[in-house]
Amino acid sequence: MIAVVGGTGPEGSGLAQRWARVGESIIIGSRDAERARAAAAHITETAGPLASVEGADNLTAVKMCDIVVLTVPFAGQAELLKQLKPAFRPGTVLIDASVPLAAAVGGRPTRVLGVWQGSAAEQAAEIAGKNVTVAAAFHSLSATVLKGDQPVDCDVIVCSDDERARQVASVLAAKIPGVRAIDGGKLENARIVEAMTALLITLNIRHKVQGAGWRVTGLGI
Amino acid sequence: MIAVVGGTGPEGSGLAQRWARVGESIIIGSRDAERARAAAAHITETAGPLASVEGADNLTAVKMCDIVVLTVPFAGQAELLKQLKPAFRPGTVLIDASVPLAAAVGGRPTRVLGVWQGSAAEQAAEIAGKNVTVAAAFHSLSATVLKGDQPVDCDVIVCSDDERARQVASVLAAKIPGVRAIDGGKLENARIVEAMTALLITLNIRHKVQGAGWRVTGLGI
Repeated sequence: MIAVVGGTGPEGSGLAQRWARVGESIIIGSRDAERARAAAAHITETAGPLASVEGADNLTAVKMCDIVVLTVPFAGQAELLKQLKPAFRPGTVLIDASVPLAAAVGGRPTRVLGVWQGSAAEQAAEIAGKNVTVAAAFHSLSATVLKGDQPVDCDVIVCSDDERARQVASVLAAKIPGVRAIDGGKLENARIVEAMTALLITLNIRHKVQGAGWRVTGLGI
Repeated sequence: MIAVVGGTGPEGSGLAQRWARVGESIIIGSRDAERARAAAAHITETAGPLASVEGADNLTAVKMCDIVVLTVPFAGQAELLKQLKPAFRPGTVLIDASVPLAAAVGGRPTRVLGVWQGSAAEQAAEIAGKNVTVAAAFHSLSATVLKGDQPVDCDVIVCSDDERARQVASVLAAKIPGVRAIDGGKLENARIVEAMTALLITLNIRHKVQGAGWRVTGLGI
């Protein structure tokens, strides 16, 4: 069972819908349990007969799951993780999709903030504590594209210092039609992958699209 | 005529060979004019009948050209630009392909240094002065792949604050078979594109290849 924390937002609900459609059991987490249940009901409707989606407040969602996907705006990430810390089960895989866009402090979404730990994902790892292992993934997937039902023409670069966390994130990425999971090395490389998402926002603006993404080439795969 | 400063290195000579092959006139620049002439002779041999390639010391090369492509290790970029500054013709387009890899100070090639101006390209713009306009481009093209004669399965993201410089860099990128030039917005975005090259080095290492690259998807082009 996968908790999608911040699952009422566009990125979280897009991921949840894609995973629900292929039979993953999902709990949508939100500050507001009512909103989470409404989002879960909506996803259940659209995701087809395999869908098993519930809603709960974030803390309850995290307590119920061994895999937690974090899809909240960067402005709220640290505070939320402090609240969630006591709720993580030992051995939880925390997959962080946060991007420290400057929009978090009123700046531009095409720029990133410097994060003391190096990246939003490394900040997440520091705050979430010893019960979790962290992978950074899913930053580059357009919420607009995820919401649809076409294959997603984008790779997911997975950064982690823990092979099991990388494996879990990679398997989840590959469950989204069209997506390939690419081993992006250590968690510290999340600082590059996060910044690449700000560049995708520039590309969306410059090219007047909503679904710019990346494919890695030359890997012989 | 295009000056490729640092053109005896793998990236510069790879670019020079690709351009020479499609009929661009190239001057290979190097600290050592003899080495530059030797590299030019080698490229002339391999690039076929259209090739027009000469060699000169960097200062002479820059004096002769309105387009200068800078492909030197980051450790030498600033010092070299200070030397070249008086030689730039008014209106020169300077295309910077530098990547501030931590290898420049004995660190890892999978990490980047923080550059005070934000990126190697912005540092170049600050140092090179008012006679030049700067575009950042070509970072992501593998020297190993450029050296060959197959189409290059990689896009070139071009960042510039000057539309003419962007245009010149984009036209040169598109002259390399397989390559698409992608408008990557302002020069400040070079900090992301440069860091992406460090991630390509991680991908090369992790996946045991030499030619990892990127394609941008979802642009409708």
